[in-house]
Amino acid sequence: MNDERVKADLPAGFHDYLPREMIVRNAMIEKIRRVFECFGFDPLETPAIERKVVLTGGETTAMRIYNVRAQDEVVVTDERSPIPLALRFDLTVPLARVVAEHLGIGEGQERALRLPFRRYQIGNVWRGEKPQAGRFREFLQCDADACGTEAPVADAEIVALMVATLRVLDVPRFVVKMNDRKLLNGLAAYAGFDPAYTADVLRILDKFMKIGRDGVLRELQKPPRPATAHVREGEEDEESDYGLGLSADVADRIGNFLDCSGGTDDLLDQCTSLFTGVATAEEGIAELRAIVHALRAMAVPEQYWAFDPAVARGLGYYTGPVFETFLLHEDGSTIERMHTDDAGTKTVERFGSVFSGGRYDGLVSRFSDANIPATGASIGVDRLFDQLVKLDRITLTPTLVQVLVTVMDQQFLDDYYAITATLRDAGIRTMLWTGTETTFKSQMAYAAAQEIPVLVIMGGDEQAAGTVTIRDMATRSQEASPRGALVETIQRMLGRAWVVAHNN
Amino acid sequence: MNDERVKADLPAGFHDYLPREMIVRNAMIEKIRRVFECFGFDPLETPAIERKVVLTGGETTAMRIYNVRAQDEVVVTDERSPIPLALRFDLTVPLARVVAEHLGIGEGQERALRLPFRRYQIGNVWRGEKPQAGRFREFLQCDADACGTEAPVADAEIVALMVATLRVLDVPRFVVKMNDRKLLNGLAAYAGFDPAYTADVLRILDKFMKIGRDGVLRELQKPPRPATAHVREGEEDEESDYGLGLSADVADRIGNFLDCSGGTDDLLDQCTSLFTGVATAEEGIAELRAIVHALRAMAVPEQYWAFDPAVARGLGYYTGPVFETFLLHEDGSTIERMHTDDAGTKTVERFGSVFSGGRYDGLVSRFSDANIPATGASIGVDRLFDQLVKLDRITLTPTLVQVLVTVMDQQFLDDYYAITATLRDAGIRTMLWTGTETTFKSQMAYAAAQEIPVLVIMGGDEQAAGTVTIRDMATRSQEASPRGALVETIQRMLGRAWVVAHNN
Repeated sequence: MNDERVKADLPAGFHDYLPREMIVRNAMIEKIRRVFECFGFDPLETPAIERKVVLTGGETTAMRIYNVRAQDEVVVTDERSPIPLALRFDLTVPLARVVAEHLGIGEGQERALRLPFRRYQIGNVWRGEKPQAGRFREFLQCDADACGTEAPVADAEIVALMVATLRVLDVPRFVVKMNDRKLLNGLAAYAGFDPAYTADVLRILDKFMKIGRDGVLRELQKPPRPATAHVREGEEDEESDYGLGLSADVADRIGNFLDCSGGTDDLLDQCTSLFTGVATAEEGIAELRAIVHALRAMAVPEQYWAFDPAVARGLGYYTGPVFETFLLHEDGSTIERMHTDDAGTKTVERFGSVFSGGRYDGLVSRFSDANIPATGASIGVDRLFDQLVKLDRITLTPTLVQVLVTVMDQQFLDDYYAITATLRDAGIRTMLWTGTETTFKSQMAYAAAQEIPVLVIMGGDEQAAGTVTIRDMATRSQEASPRGALVETIQRMLGRAWVVAHNN
Repeated sequence: MNDERVKADLPAGFHDYLPREMIVRNAMIEKIRRVFECFGFDPLETPAIERKVVLTGGETTAMRIYNVRAQDEVVVTDERSPIPLALRFDLTVPLARVVAEHLGIGEGQERALRLPFRRYQIGNVWRGEKPQAGRFREFLQCDADACGTEAPVADAEIVALMVATLRVLDVPRFVVKMNDRKLLNGLAAYAGFDPAYTADVLRILDKFMKIGRDGVLRELQKPPRPATAHVREGEEDEESDYGLGLSADVADRIGNFLDCSGGTDDLLDQCTSLFTGVATAEEGIAELRAIVHALRAMAVPEQYWAFDPAVARGLGYYTGPVFETFLLHEDGSTIERMHTDDAGTKTVERFGSVFSGGRYDGLVSRFSDANIPATGASIGVDRLFDQLVKLDRITLTPTLVQVLVTVMDQQFLDDYYAITATLRDAGIRTMLWTGTETTFKSQMAYAAAQEIPVLVIMGGDEQAAGTVTIRDMATRSQEASPRGALVETIQRMLGRAWVVAHNN
């Protein structure tokens, strides 16, 4: 026993999933797994800890990595010197390491995998970022990637997978927006700016949904940030005081690009006209047309996907098609919510993409000269869970227990044991009362608070008659059942309890 | 692109689970989850990272913990100063923190949970130990614990859960050995040694299965280790050069205790005689009798559990019944294997307990004055997986994919898309060929190597006739199916492929 108590809490940015959340979360993960497997992706698991140089390539990253170090490392005799270790910050770098290591493309490495290699991985990643709403320092990602395949059909399959997953997850309305980095890389030649500015232009285009067309064009033309000016916190979500100093002429042409409107086919036609003669853009448009064609051949409903020239997708390593998913209101508008902080300040809380991806060349370039093309997508389960809870799309229940076998009389314990075992053998999730409070009232109160749908009650009368009393907590009715018919009675009642619970 | 390549490998003690292993591993985890839920345990998840003082209680632990630290921590403005963080080394301490934090027993903390709280948690834990066979630095634990319940029936339920889990996992033969720390704590009074030696005596008794009765008795009597002598590596697995210096008289009485033999009831009777008048031992025996009684009332088959007075269960924090599981050969003997190392030295590789647990008081004592009794058990999935593989009890397959839709002719791509979508909609795990190699031969070779049971083939003839050819890879037979009957034909063939695969 300690004299000084330790405060029971978690560091900032971390949180527990109590049963109330975990029950839903597990159901979500299970659905995601089934869809991924149905699409021909196989499970992979890699350790949370990797060599730091594997994760970063030896470069300083913007990502704030968690360094890891075993205590009194020197006693580990099989390591020559402590190797810098870190926690993975995504599942893509570990995939690249696995492909390079197990595909036998490196020197002296065995070939345990073959191409095409389609894997999914469900696992936590860690980033030491400033915690904010819906963003955690540990969060669960579910990634599906197809490696060793360069045909656009592989990209179309990723979009089809994203749509199928979100439909299976009962996400009410959403759209997977598609674009192509090759199209965007053609912007410089089309609009007439130095290609060196492309990344900066895309960063600003990426704010289109947040600051609108005019905000984007203003920011493109604003004078650049002086060396002495600091980046303001949250600036990536709003119009910056500084820009790229592009000419009005160039901004106008980018405006024309942003003005493209209409459905996917119209947009593709408009882009085809705008980008005529810009080779990289034409290639991107051809890829998008191939994806659209495949999605239609696979009968993926059109309401769930669209080409959107304004989607730029943050990460720099995408090289072809890119995908972002947005949840929508019933009327098709993007979901956002007013949020009032402690100081009474109102801000619009915008939900970012919950499921993003794209094609990236050079998957293994950090490890090997081999050229392994890859395409994939990643769903952020915590963020989606968070959004669905806020949208009241998720019903939380405190327990999975379906039946509580109450303890009315200690002398009948053997009967309670036997009843419990019988119900469990039938696959019914059953709890035998083992609480320190022994009154029937306390057991009833527990069942009510935990929302356990069915109670089994057996006192002297029932024991003598060879029956048990079964209480339906939802309807507050109870009935006597012969011991031999217990399982059937409860199964019938559970069906009914389920209907009642869902009709309320 | 980097000029200097990074070597694609993992730090020592870590490893990947490629699809071949993950497919089986996921199936195991899913079975464990279902059994735990059936027994009325609800899912909980806690972060991998905790405040270090929460994990250690501020004390130096024998466990080699991984310290964790975000890079350039100072920019995190919401933290007053960097708080020492670490990776969890088990799931029990986080459970204690959760109970203390969410049960509202601490000051100003809300009550999100209520007692009895029965949770399971499936998650990785990290220990910076020297890596060895079947032991990793990251490994998956599945824990089930019942908190807030002191009746022996709760312990019996844990044993019943252990038995049910291992039976569902198709573990061929095993036994859950039970003992009670209260019985063992009575050894001092019974055998006549200073109770301060109890922990040391139990540590030596714990070697009973490794060094036998005589080894234990010798070690108890050997003179103590001089201050100058170091502990040899691996000494915990063999007879030590040093002991406790107990008298022959005391060792004899401990020998009498070890000589207890027979079935559970006989052993309980013998212990009852030996420990007459030793209050704590009598209490332990009464607990064991209650558990045995409950196991019989729950009809848990007797072959799967036994009272074994020699089980001491390493961890010091157990306070009542303790449980350890051992896999057995068909003839009932404990499984061990001859192992020859690189130098040609033969050693017996012994498989330790795969599923252990017990009752522990003071679950939350680190955080609170509250008295929360708890009992539970933890299954080491990696170690069990490792054992089942070594025992050839697990069949590994490279993929979950059931059908490969081959690409015979690019002009029929739309048909291949449509077929793929139809099969997936029917829940059949389907892969459309998207490899860079386009010959039929390479697609066949891939399917054979990946052990994909069914191939869909459609060339010009089939397209004209409105059929597809379906190949059963197991029987090397193929048949034509009308497009409309595709799903039914494949479902029938998958059933057959499954039977063929399992009859071989």
